[in-house]
Parts: sequence; C-alpha cells; structure tokens
Amino acid sequence: MLKVGIIGATAYTSLELIKILLRHPEVKITYLGVRRTDRPKISDIFPALKGLLDLPCETIEQKEIPGNIDLAFITLPPTISMQYVPLFTGKGIKVIDFSADYRFRDKSLYEKWYKAQHTDSKGIETAVYGLPELFREQIKKTNLVGNPGCYTTATILALAPLLLKGLIFSEDIIVDAKSGVSGRGREPKEDTHYCECNENIEAYSVGGHRHSPEIEHILSIKTHQKVSIQFVPHLIPMNRGILCTIYAKPKAGVYGRSSLHDDDVHKLYKEFYGKEPFVRIKEGNEMPKTKDVIFTNFCDIATKVTENRIIILSVIDNLIKGASGQAVQNMNVMCGFDEKMGLL
Amino acid sequence: MLKVGIIGATAYTSLELIKILLRHPEVKITYLGVRRTDRPKISDIFPALKGLLDLPCETIEQKEIPGNIDLAFITLPPTISMQYVPLFTGKGIKVIDFSADYRFRDKSLYEKWYKAQHTDSKGIETAVYGLPELFREQIKKTNLVGNPGCYTTATILALAPLLLKGLIFSEDIIVDAKSGVSGRGREPKEDTHYCECNENIEAYSVGGHRHSPEIEHILSIKTHQKVSIQFVPHLIPMNRGILCTIYAKPKAGVYGRSSLHDDDVHKLYKEFYGKEPFVRIKEGNEMPKTKDVIFTNFCDIATKVTENRIIILSVIDNLIKGASGQAVQNMNVMCGFDEKMGLL
Amino acid sequence: MLKVGIIGATAYTSLELIKILLRHPEVKITYLGVRRTDRPKISDIFPALKGLLDLPCETIEQKEIPGNIDLAFITLPPTISMQYVPLFTGKGIKVIDFSADYRFRDKSLYEKWYKAQHTDSKGIETAVYGLPELFREQIKKTNLVGNPGCYTTATILALAPLLLKGLIFSEDIIVDAKSGVSGRGREPKEDTHYCECNENIEAYSVGGHRHSPEIEHILSIKTHQKVSIQFVPHLIPMNRGILCTIYAKPKAGVYGRSSLHDDDVHKLYKEFYGKEPFVRIKEGNEMPKTKDVIFTNFCDIATKVTENRIIILSVIDNLIKGASGQAVQNMNVMCGFDEKMGLL
Amino acid sequence: MLKVGIIGATAYTSLELIKILLRHPEVKITYLGVRRTDRPKISDIFPALKGLLDLPCETIEQKEIPGNIDLAFITLPPTISMQYVPLFTGKGIKVIDFSADYRFRDKSLYEKWYKAQHTDSKGIETAVYGLPELFREQIKKTNLVGNPGCYTTATILALAPLLLKGLIFSEDIIVDAKSGVSGRGREPKEDTHYCECNENIEAYSVGGHRHSPEIEHILSIKTHQKVSIQFVPHLIPMNRGILCTIYAKPKAGVYGRSSLHDDDVHKLYKEFYGKEPFVRIKEGNEMPKTKDVIFTNFCDIATKVTENRIIILSVIDNLIKGASGQAVQNMNVMCGFDEKMGLL
Repeated sequence: MLKVGIIGATAYTSLELIKILLRHPEVKITYLGVRRTDRPKISDIFPALKGLLDLPCETIEQKEIPGNIDLAFITLPPTISMQYVPLFTGKGIKVIDFSADYRFRDKSLYEKWYKAQHTDSKGIETAVYGLPELFREQIKKTNLVGNPGCYTTATILALAPLLLKGLIFSEDIIVDAKSGVSGRGREPKEDTHYCECNENIEAYSVGGHRHSPEIEHILSIKTHQKVSIQFVPHLIPMNRGILCTIYAKPKAGVYGRSSLHDDDVHKLYKEFYGKEPFVRIKEGNEMPKTKDVIFTNFCDIATKVTENRIIILSVIDNLIKGASGQAVQNMNVMCGFDEKMGLL
Repeated sequence: MLKVGIIGATAYTSLELIKILLRHPEVKITYLGVRRTDRPKISDIFPALKGLLDLPCETIEQKEIPGNIDLAFITLPPTISMQYVPLFTGKGIKVIDFSADYRFRDKSLYEKWYKAQHTDSKGIETAVYGLPELFREQIKKTNLVGNPGCYTTATILALAPLLLKGLIFSEDIIVDAKSGVSGRGREPKEDTHYCECNENIEAYSVGGHRHSPEIEHILSIKTHQKVSIQFVPHLIPMNRGILCTIYAKPKAGVYGRSSLHDDDVHKLYKEFYGKEPFVRIKEGNEMPKTKDVIFTNFCDIATKVTENRIIILSVIDNLIKGASGQAVQNMNVMCGFDEKMGLL
Repeated sequence: MLKVGIIGATAYTSLELIKILLRHPEVKITYLGVRRTDRPKISDIFPALKGLLDLPCETIEQKEIPGNIDLAFITLPPTISMQYVPLFTGKGIKVIDFSADYRFRDKSLYEKWYKAQHTDSKGIETAVYGLPELFREQIKKTNLVGNPGCYTTATILALAPLLLKGLIFSEDIIVDAKSGVSGRGREPKEDTHYCECNENIEAYSVGGHRHSPEIEHILSIKTHQKVSIQFVPHLIPMNRGILCTIYAKPKAGVYGRSSLHDDDVHKLYKEFYGKEPFVRIKEGNEMPKTKDVIFTNFCDIATKVTENRIIILSVIDNLIKGASGQAVQNMNVMCGFDEKMGLL
Repeated sequence: MLKVGIIGATAYTSLELIKILLRHPEVKITYLGVRRTDRPKISDIFPALKGLLDLPCETIEQKEIPGNIDLAFITLPPTISMQYVPLFTGKGIKVIDFSADYRFRDKSLYEKWYKAQHTDSKGIETAVYGLPELFREQIKKTNLVGNPGCYTTATILALAPLLLKGLIFSEDIIVDAKSGVSGRGREPKEDTHYCECNENIEAYSVGGHRHSPEIEHILSIKTHQKVSIQFVPHLIPMNRGILCTIYAKPKAGVYGRSSLHDDDVHKLYKEFYGKEPFVRIKEGNEMPKTKDVIFTNFCDIATKVTENRIIILSVIDNLIKGASGQAVQNMNVMCGFDEKMGLL
C-alpha cells in the first residue's frame, strides 16, 4: 500500500482527492497537513467524510516533514506551495503539486504572472507537467509533477490534435471558458456569496487570467510553434464543471483533403484520443454537457467545422479532471498502477 | 414630495428599498448614510442602480443628523440601530427601523434574546409594530415603527385569523419555515458561500431563532392569550422568498359548526383579509409558491384541514413584504398616502 | 459474478443504479430492458455512461424474460411493475422492485392509495420491505424485495429508535419533508420545468402523498402500535437530496430519567445505529445537510429536545439511499456480499 | 388611455408584458387572446397576477378581431404570428409582433431559416425593426413593428458603434452567447427539465441558430457592409438574463489615433449611447453582470481592447429588453409617450 499525505487539506480539491483515494485499492491516506485550522479532524471540516476518514489535521507551520508518507499531494496556494515542496522532494518523497508553482518551464514567465520570486529553481526545472494524455512518458519517470490548472486541462486537450497536425492558425484562437463557482475556492468573498453568483453570469479577469499564459506556454512547447490565445473566463451559477468553447481558424486540410471537413476532424480526434481512458469524443451533432462529466475524470470533446471556423467544445469537472482526479491519474502513472485505478 | 433618507444603505434590503422608492410618486431620496464604505456612490455598491440613483453615501460615524429629510429608514443591525434612532426621532423625523430594536413591547424580552441592554427606553415604549394588516390604526398615529422580521410577517399573517377567533390551541403550533439565502445578509461567510448553499438544504438555529420570541410576543399581545410556537427555519438554495408551513391543532369550529372544515377556514381567511391589498388567499387545492410573490409585496396564504391538524401555508418575499415593501407600506400609512403607492 | 438486469432502464434511479453497479466487484450488468425508446443504447439515453456501459436497451413489450440474469432490478412505475415481477420470480430470479407494488403487507391499503387492483397476491404476501436497518434478517432469506420510497426511508430511520422504545406519542407526529426535483421523475411536465422550479419553493400533495400510508404502515408493523403522521412534502430547487424535519411529542424518559433529555436521545440513536454502516448520528449542535450525503448511501440524523417537542432531522440522497443505493445494499444482503460493497 | 390586447397570452414574455403594462399610466389591457387553454383566466395560468389582472383569456381560433383595442402585442410563435397580424393591421390596429415573422426585410432569408412560406408580403415589407436605439425615427411612423430577438438585441447594441464607425472587420466577429432557460420557452421538454438544466452548461444550435442571420441581416442593412458572425449560444442554469461575449478584430483607430485604444472605445460608446435611456456603459474594469439588468429594460455594455482583439460584453434580461420591455419601449415611441414610461 502506498502511503500518501495531503498538505493543504481544507481546499475543495482536497475533499475530492480524499473521496477518490478512499476508493483506491493501492493507497492509504496516512497524513493530513493544514496551515491552520480550529477544527482538529478532517471530518469536522468536511462532515461528508464522517465515518469514512476521521484523521486529525496536523499543522505544518513547523515545516517538519511527516515520516510515514511515500507520496505527497500539495494543495496549497501558488507561491506558498514552493516553500513546502522541496522539503518533500529533498527526502525522496514523490510530490504532486496542485498550484501553479511547478507548471512552467520558464521561471521568468511564472514570476511575471504570479508576481513573486520562484524560490525552488531546481524544482521548477525538473518538474513534469501532469497532463498524462500529452506527457505520459515523462510523468512515469519523474518524482515531481506540476498538476495542471482546470481551464488549462480543458483547453489543451481540446486544441492539441489540431495544433500538433498544424491544421489551425496557432495565433488566432479564442477560448471562451465557463466555470462553476468551486473554481473560485472555498474562501468566503463578496464574489462567492450565494446571492451574488446565483441567477447571474459574468466574465472576469478579461484579458488577464493566469491560466492564459499556462495554456500558451504548454501548447507552444508541445507543438513547437508560437501559440497565442484570447482567453475569457466566465462564472456560472453551478457548483462544478467547466465548458470551453474554442474558436480557431482552419489553415489546412487533413487526410488528403485541401480544406477541413467535419468528419475529418472528428476522425482525427477519435484517432488521437482512441486509447485514452478519460477522453471521449462526441458523435454526430451531440454537444458535450458538463452534467455528463461532473464527479468523473472524463473530458468530453466535440468539434464542428463552420464556414470560417472550427469550433471545439470541451467539458471537464474542474475539481476532478481539472485537479484531484488528474492528480490521482498522475499518481497512478508515476507509481505504475493501472491508470484508471480509483477513477471509474 | 416627502424627503427620505436611508441609514445603512449597503444592505440587500436597502437595495430593494431604493428600487421601490424610485417608483414612488410622492417620495424623493435625499440622503444615504453608511457606517463605512470604500465605494463613495450607491451605484458603485449596487451597479444595478447606475443611472437610476447616483447619490453619494455619507458616513454616519459622527452621528450628525442630515437636515434634509422628513423620514428615515434605518437598516442597521440590531443593537446598532438603537444608537441612531433617537437622534432622528428627537428631531421630529419619522423613523421606520428595520432591526429588532423596536419590535418588542417588553424590554427584558428583547434584552434576553439580543444579549444587549436596550438604551432607548422611550423609543421601545412608544414604537408601533409595523404590520399594517394588524396594527394599521396605531401606525397611522406614530412617528416610530419597528418594521417586522421576515419569518415573523409570514407567520403572523398566517396564524392571526385562527388565533383571533380562538379556533386553534395557541400553545401547540409548529412553524416549519424555509428561506432563501438573502435572509442571511450580504456579509460573505462560510454558510453563505455559493458552493455551501447550492444543492443543499439544512435547518439552522433549531430551537433558538430570534424570530421565535418575536412571533410569540406579538401574537400573544394581539390575540390576548399565551401563544407558543415551535419554530425551525431552513436555508433554501434560492435568492429570495420565504415559505412557512404551519401545523396547528383545531380547538373549535366556526360559522356554527362544531368542528373545523376546509371551506369554513377558507371563508374565514377570505373575510379576514378581504379588504387587504397585499394578502391573497389561494382557492381550491392551489398551494402558494414563492415564485408568485417574489419581487412583490404580496403574502399568499392557503389553508388545509386534515384529520388532526389544520395546515396553513404562507409565502412572502423576505426582502419586500418581509422588509422593504412592508416599510414603504408603513410609510404610506404613516404619511397618509394610498397604502399601495409604489408597491404594485 | 452475479448477472443482473435492469427493467425500466431510462429512469433517473436506473442511471444511479448503473453507476453503482459498475463499481461493484461481484456484479455484471447483462441486460437492460425498457418499455419503449427511440435510442437503442443506454449511453444514448445517458451520455454520461459513454465508454462505461454501451449495452443496448431491449424492449420488454413481449414480456419475454431474458435468460442471462440472476437478479433483476425493476424500476418501472407502480401498477406496471407488478405485471413484470412475477415473470422473474416465477423463474427463480431474485427481484428488487423500486415501485410501491411490493411495499405493503396489506393489499387493500395498496389498492386504496394506488387506485388499482393488485394482480400479484402471492408476491405482495411474500415480499420483504427492503430497509436493511430494520429488516435485515428477512431480506437475507427472501427472493423478492420491495425497495422503500425515498421520503419513507428518511422518515422511518429517523423515527424508529424513539417509537420502538415507546418514547413519543405515536399518533402525534409531523413530518415536514423537502426534496430535490429528481424525486419527481424524468418526464418533462409543467412542474418540472426549470423556470417553474428554480427560485421557488412549494408544498405539494398536502394531506395526501402516497408515502404517508407507507410510512405509517411499516412503522406500525415494526413497532407494534398505531403510528399516524401528518406528512407534507415540499419541492426544493436542487437536483437531489431529501431533508425530513420531524416533530414528535415526548411521552417518557429513557435511561432511568423521567423526561427526555437531549443527551439521552443522542445516546439512544448512537446505540441503535452504532453498527449500521450507512447511518451517521450528528454530534453536538451540528445539523444534517443534504450536501453531505448526496451521491452517497448515508443517512445523517440529528435530534434536538426542546421545551415541548423532540425534533428529528434526517437527510439522504433520494436517488441513492432513497432508491438505487438501498437497492444495492439489499442485493448485497440477499446475495451474501459485504453489505457496503460498491457503496463506499 | 390606450386600449391594448395581447394575443398569445400564455408565454413567459406575456407574463412580463402584463406586469409592465399594469404599471404603465397610459395603458389599459382590454383583451387577452390565446390559441387554446383549459384555464379560463390569466390569473389561473399565472397565479402571480391574482388580484392584479383577472381578465378572461379568449380563444382566438375563430380569428375574430376584438373591437376594443388600439394596439395588439402578438406573442405567438413564428409562422403562426403572420396568420394573425394582417387581421389587426387590416383594421388599422397598431401591432407589435414578438415573433421573427416581421424582423426580416428579405422574405427569402426568412423563408430559408424558418422553413415556411411567408404569407404576409405586405406586412414584411412595411414592418419596422423594433430596436429604438437604431431605428427610432422609423418606429415613430409605423403601425407594425417586428420586435427583435433576445440574442439579437444584446449583440446588435454591442456591435453597432464599432461597425458604424468602421473600426472592426465586419466579417470576422465571434459572438459567444449565454442565456437563462426562460429563453427556451414555457413548453415542458427534456431539455427544459430542471434536472437536465441545473448544474449543467451546454452549447446548442452550434453553427445554426436562427438569431444568427437576424443579427447579420440587421447589422448589414444598418451599417452598409456585409456583416458576418460566428454565433454560438449556450444554456445557463438561471431563469433569465443573457450575456454576449463578442470578439472582434480591430481595423482602424478612432479620434485621430492609428490603432484602437481602450479609452477611445469607451469614449465612443459613451458618446454613441449618451442619450439612450436604457443603455449603460460600464466604467473602468467593471464587467456587466446579468444580475444588474434582470427585471429591467437596461442593456449594460463593457469594452476591452487586448493585444489582438476588441472584446465587447453586453447583458440584458431576455424577457424584458430582449422581448417585453423592448415591446413597451416600441409602443411608447409609436404612440408618442415618454419612451421610459412604465419601464423604470
């Protein structure tokens, strides 16, 4: 049994992570660390866990590393996370980090967007981006994974096949993203108040969301071209789920045709993701719905070629495939377990 | 034109109050007071008001009373409100207070439930309870109204006809109340976070909600008997609206019959509220729905006699008939305007 | 591996049932029957199942019983179900029926409330009521289980300890129940339209809901006294979850005390359900929340003694502990599997 | 007093229309026509209207035109509406039609998208498109208005200033639209079922929504260039409200500058809509929220220039500015009333 710890146990993603790990046959949760809390047991913080996991939460202020864990999930906020990660990796403990601190290959890009000096140069250099569909082989060999952002996962999976084949203009892409409120975190703020979110939709961070450079950075590296997107996220009155509606411009045809056709693109996606356990391509005119993927690790994708555009729609659960499910998928890959274990 | 001020302008009830007053043909809002804010104009706090009311919010820390108002709506929290009300009444300005500070005739009862000494003895003695359907004549003559609580309004209107006629046991009444989240106020807290309220229902303050003694107190005074209720409020995932489901035990019949019949009770309610502009009695088996009264000053009521009980259901908008609409109704009564003015 | 079939596969409960069974290590779904459909595969009806279960749906109009199943879950509506059940039981196939057709020991009571003649007398006589917490030993030995209603499960579990000990008046009980919209079924009707349910709460079937006699019937049988309840269900704007707020009158004390005390009742419930895997008793003043039990088979219960009443609050997921999870729990008991298998 | 009738009184838009007209000081509702109903009074169909309007609904099968009306609002579906409109216009009764039947200047375009022959050639030729902000002078003189679609209103108001000034490429525009469920109408269907819409977001009619040609048609006529948009609507779990997020490519600068700047665009919009009573331009980085415009006739707009795009966001209430409020605004213009009458 793999002994795992969760550092930052009070986040929404941690609750989902615990639920998944409790179903995982090869894992035992042995440690829960928090920065501060007035409720000593995890089941006091999340009553849903009563009778399932009644572990105490230990404060990690002293930065003493617990001795009984083989792998740590770090669910701390960006810029905080990098203060803890090296303590674990330094002792040979595998780490899957949920923050942005280990998602960039380019330290200066991170520092520009997160407005902080990165204090773990070695970590950021060696970490692997934890999107198994694109980086599986590297994940197998690493001890440190930077777990992708939620918008990022939905967008990259939607765009990768077209960009890798060079079928769209890589600098003329619009990503109109919609997310449930859990994406905003658990801290009570004016903009997470029920009456402010319910019966309302609004855009936020227009032209400046931090997932935008992450998407461009990873896609540029992976597809060897400059990728530039126009990203606008919106807050939707629902707990969880992300839908990305992506508008790209066709550049070339595929399968021997001079222009892009609906069925060619569909075939391309079916082939590209044919062996992936967690990516499903919609058939016919069916559109992906967040309700079909919430509480699962699936990403559902549909494509549609119109007169001037190709539209790609992708949905995930922001807390599962966009965070905790993907982290467990990464753990499975890193530890040699069946990649689907605990996730179906 | 009546010049009115609102003290405590950042509450949800204040937004609703402003919207109503803007439609009122005999009123002009001349002053907005707040305890503190970093947003100087009311339309910065509530962008919905942009172009409708762009008045600045003045801080009221100095407790200087503005000179240009004839009537003040005080929407401050309980125990704070009584610090301001005498400043206004002392200058002959009419006051409608939204807090609990002027709802009790019995100072010690207030002090027990609100855990504070009442500092305005004269005020609490002379104030009138602002439920026009039961206290219209007193409201006409007063300068100080204690505007009722939201649960209180829905419950008292539902029970008054039966209790006044002596048809139910006054100490064996159960009030199961359900409220939208705006009843919890605008302050961001864990229990008003969208993800905590959405897809959830829970009871709160079981056996100890402050509206319970208010209901018992007012009904006891009005119906000249000891009224005792078991009150349990619940939080419902919707913005606004209250439904009270009330279970009482029949004691006697009416209209010459020895026991209570469905059609007798219906007739009684139709007669009792026949001339009331804002109380509607449902016909047949139709049940009241909050969606039919939200954004209005109506209270819809249905009754149903079963084998052992009489069930009364009442719905209101907690922010309108349960607060701001009722306040304007009181203002209309106090100032001699048509009682419906601005409210239809 | 136990081969199971689902007859009536297009219901919301069937979707949940399939999801649970797919995780169950001892079960294989081998047959899906529907009365009629234009979508041949279950994953066309429920796209969430794509890649998980792509079985075809067979029409069951001919009433030919499939040969490849050991146990059938029947999720057909009441009065329809009893037309199919005997076909299965007659061939020695175990049956768990979701309708009301096999929940009553008293045929005439069924016929009165469901306004239909019961055509399977033998079935209704031999069926066992599928609430494992109260009827586990009988369930172990039967081939035919009448799976309880959702309101019924939440209410009976909440009341059983007090009634069995004789601590409350069994004919003076009020059950104020609140349910998410999935309890209304999948058929599109005016009262399940999004805009009619959202931002609304209303009572329905006041004084005449069919779960009312079911609750009284089962509790009377189990506790050997006449149990009579006043039951009022309400529709809540959420997908799933039930909260029952129950008001009873204390009759006697327990643990040697003359009257009922909060901590005694708490202790009683802890003892009564101490070994139950799916009933959790809340501690202190914590109230049960539907969000803590949805997507689980748990029933969370809290109790509170007030001046004149004892209030019991219980929550379940109407589709899981109120239907499909309970059915799998019953299957586990009937087939000798670990009772929790597939359910945690 | 203007005597008005509503033909098609059972639509959601009709309920909103009635509520607005009841507040309008110059109007009296004298006739309600329906195609069929089993509920004889409008307050039986919409209990919210009880005590406010208890008019009977007359069936209009016979197509007899009521004698007592000066102006008719027709809220019938497309292709049905044109069967009734000429009956009214033929008698000199002013008509405001809510369907698409009178929104196109080009009969063949209508017939292509609505798959029906247009039977009122004279009507479609003389009708005026009812968007007062762009066609006020024509509306003043006409007797027949085609009231715009909801998505159309939000999109055209957002794009008009840039297109009229020639500042963006008119054939490279993306409109990502999000609408509450009331936009789908009142008929119960699988995709308006509460449990299908709640906790879900999905795109629909991708590449083929009927508002797309309406937007292109009207903008092309008004701005004298070929306008071509990529339009994708989404269904959001809320009752009402539309947000359009529009992505356009800058072509030229304004106010003497060679490229487009944020503050120039803001100034342009402030000037363009400076005198409009129902269009509000957001300041600074504030984004429009549907919650600020629902239940009002306002359209709130923000603009943001990014590296490669100009993003325009606009919000309206689909039932008010997107239907009934706009219809009343049109009525006010047609009849010489203050344009804001009944709408603030």
